[in-house]
Amino acid sequence: MQTVIIGSGNVAYHLAKALVENKIPPAQIFGRNEKELKAISQELNIPYSTKNLVDSDIYLICVSDHAVEDVSELIAKKDSVVAHTSGSLPIDILKGDYRKAVFYPLQTFSKLKKIEYSKIPFFIEAENEEDRKVLFELASAISENVMESTYEKRKYIHLTAVFACNFVNHLFSRAKEISDSQEIPFDYFLPLIDETVRKIHEIEPKSAQTGPAVRNDRRILELHEKLLKDESLAIYKTMNHSIQKMYEL
Amino acid sequence: MQTVIIGSGNVAYHLAKALVENKIPPAQIFGRNEKELKAISQELNIPYSTKNLVDSDIYLICVSDHAVEDVSELIAKKDSVVAHTSGSLPIDILKGDYRKAVFYPLQTFSKLKKIEYSKIPFFIEAENEEDRKVLFELASAISENVMESTYEKRKYIHLTAVFACNFVNHLFSRAKEISDSQEIPFDYFLPLIDETVRKIHEIEPKSAQTGPAVRNDRRILELHEKLLKDESLAIYKTMNHSIQKMYEL
Repeated sequence: MQTVIIGSGNVAYHLAKALVENKIPPAQIFGRNEKELKAISQELNIPYSTKNLVDSDIYLICVSDHAVEDVSELIAKKDSVVAHTSGSLPIDILKGDYRKAVFYPLQTFSKLKKIEYSKIPFFIEAENEEDRKVLFELASAISENVMESTYEKRKYIHLTAVFACNFVNHLFSRAKEISDSQEIPFDYFLPLIDETVRKIHEIEPKSAQTGPAVRNDRRILELHEKLLKDESLAIYKTMNHSIQKMYEL
Repeated sequence: MQTVIIGSGNVAYHLAKALVENKIPPAQIFGRNEKELKAISQELNIPYSTKNLVDSDIYLICVSDHAVEDVSELIAKKDSVVAHTSGSLPIDILKGDYRKAVFYPLQTFSKLKKIEYSKIPFFIEAENEEDRKVLFELASAISENVMESTYEKRKYIHLTAVFACNFVNHLFSRAKEISDSQEIPFDYFLPLIDETVRKIHEIEPKSAQTGPAVRNDRRILELHEKLLKDESLAIYKTMNHSIQKMYEL
């Protein structure tokens, strides 16, 4: 089975690298950004092209959501499985005369950060059992956590990830803004943050909740509101309201 | 120098344990909850009492914020330093004829979770240089990260921690609610969450932001809003608005 990766961003790079590390290197990495492709090609020792897409059994489209449809039209090989890697696009965003699928890695990728590929959950969708099996095996070569999915399910997976990852990161940004304003190094908070996350590996997050809102400590809540303004104040109020609703305070 | 711990909750337990592990066991653990005190006393092999507070050089008050003032009135020894361990109370909440101080460990404590005490930042306040030095040394026996503070600074430290810890945990609770509704195991998201946090040990959170809001992906934002309601919808809108303001989108 031969695989081609389309794209040159973080997902393309890490999937290509994961395949190379597992001794099933992609036959080609294809895209528009020659500089990026060349860098990936040299690092991973795989061919690249910006012009001629090679024939392959599997194509993994690893481009931004808004570009998936256009890119999918470039693939002419009929006897192939074409999978996009988006958490939020339906399978039929793919436009071409081939078998369609989804190959969604639930992880946040940065080019410079090393990732333990074996722990990344992969969610697979395909139009038929045979393709599902092929993609399941491909993902299983990379990861221990491979599951079938549906578009409906994937929408909620993506939404959960937005709360648990994107929003969490934004809270770190707003927290850092507060500590920066007082010249308190944000690094001081890393042990606390690490512990907050270690906890939920063992305890339900609902049981792990601490802080003034769940204690219904009006004095602190009012004091804090006076220290905040604009978006941070809006977040403070919205989060506290949600905490108090969850615990019926 | 002799230390007494007052309280039998998570902070009391972990401070007592940290002192025992560093071979400066408290002379006594004192409080109202005999059952808890007895358990801590047996585990750590230190005396406890619910009635007679022994004389000591240092008293560390490790009780809930609302109980600190009352508890502080129980201490009769004049030649002593009494420190509370709260992130949010002023030093003069302490009511008694002794020298007052603050000994604030910036960490979230659960009784059952092991904690690497040497990494916990401690913030010290005292009324005079000598007491500051004594408490600084006591904290330094436990941790590598001991710093002087002020009440003003401590308010912002606590507020930063609310964003980076309490609110983050609540996002995990709301995320789990979403994944539970679709029978998707929340464990699938732990590698993603771990990676989100590992990232900010190396990159500024502002540079690490991903997700539909920072990409200004209207299609996904609207799709997600349709999947949510009540508090989770309010969080979704507030967080996205804040992200888009931060990146001037």
